[in-house]
Amino acid sequence: MEIEVAITEGPIGAACACARGAGARVEFTGVVRGEEGGSAISALRYEAYRPMAENQMRKILEGLGREHPILRARVIHRIGEVPVGDAAIHVLVESGHRAEAFAVAAAFMDRLKRDVPIWKRGGVP
Amino acid sequence: MEIEVAITEGPIGAACACARGAGARVEFTGVVRGEEGGSAISALRYEAYRPMAENQMRKILEGLGREHPILRARVIHRIGEVPVGDAAIHVLVESGHRAEAFAVAAAFMDRLKRDVPIWKRGGVP
Repeated sequence: MEIEVAITEGPIGAACACARGAGARVEFTGVVRGEEGGSAISALRYEAYRPMAENQMRKILEGLGREHPILRARVIHRIGEVPVGDAAIHVLVESGHRAEAFAVAAAFMDRLKRDVPIWKRGGVP
Repeated sequence: MEIEVAITEGPIGAACACARGAGARVEFTGVVRGEEGGSAISALRYEAYRPMAENQMRKILEGLGREHPILRARVIHRIGEVPVGDAAIHVLVESGHRAEAFAVAAAFMDRLKRDVPIWKRGGVP
């Protein structure tokens, strides 16, 4: 299984991927919405404790990869100011069949919120 | 909720989407693999009973949209000869939060296989 994780301060580019033998690809994109806590915003600020965040994301994917036979996982989290409508996170999982890819992508997002030191630091008016 | 379904004989292009208020986007891509029934292939042939297939896909999405608060769903299924490595189907679901988008994308694929008249017609050597 191939794992790639990154934290970036720029926009998240298109996913270029196709693991050999992959019949299913599931992608999740988390997009910044126009309000936070009831107020209209133009952007959302994210901060990360970067080395630990990357490590944790990799560990979560390794663990999920032991439970589910996936071929490839790639996660990119953007930090800093992310404008409304832009992707704050993109998760890509490829596997032979679709059930595993759906399971890993959804489980990764649950674990990310709980275990990875990346925080919303509030909205930019 | 916005619904778009299409059956195409050409390649499936990139998804351009962003429903107002969408915070989550889930995409599923079904990719043709290099073997079918144990034999190496260069492409897979799909056929559809087209008007009924488009209708059924739309109905499935409408039903799922009543159960889950999603904002937008788009499905494109390619038919004819689809080369190995190319997408045979792309499903895109947008919603406010991620659980609904995951649920609808995964449920749509289960229903598609069962209820929509699109068939694999065998591999091209």
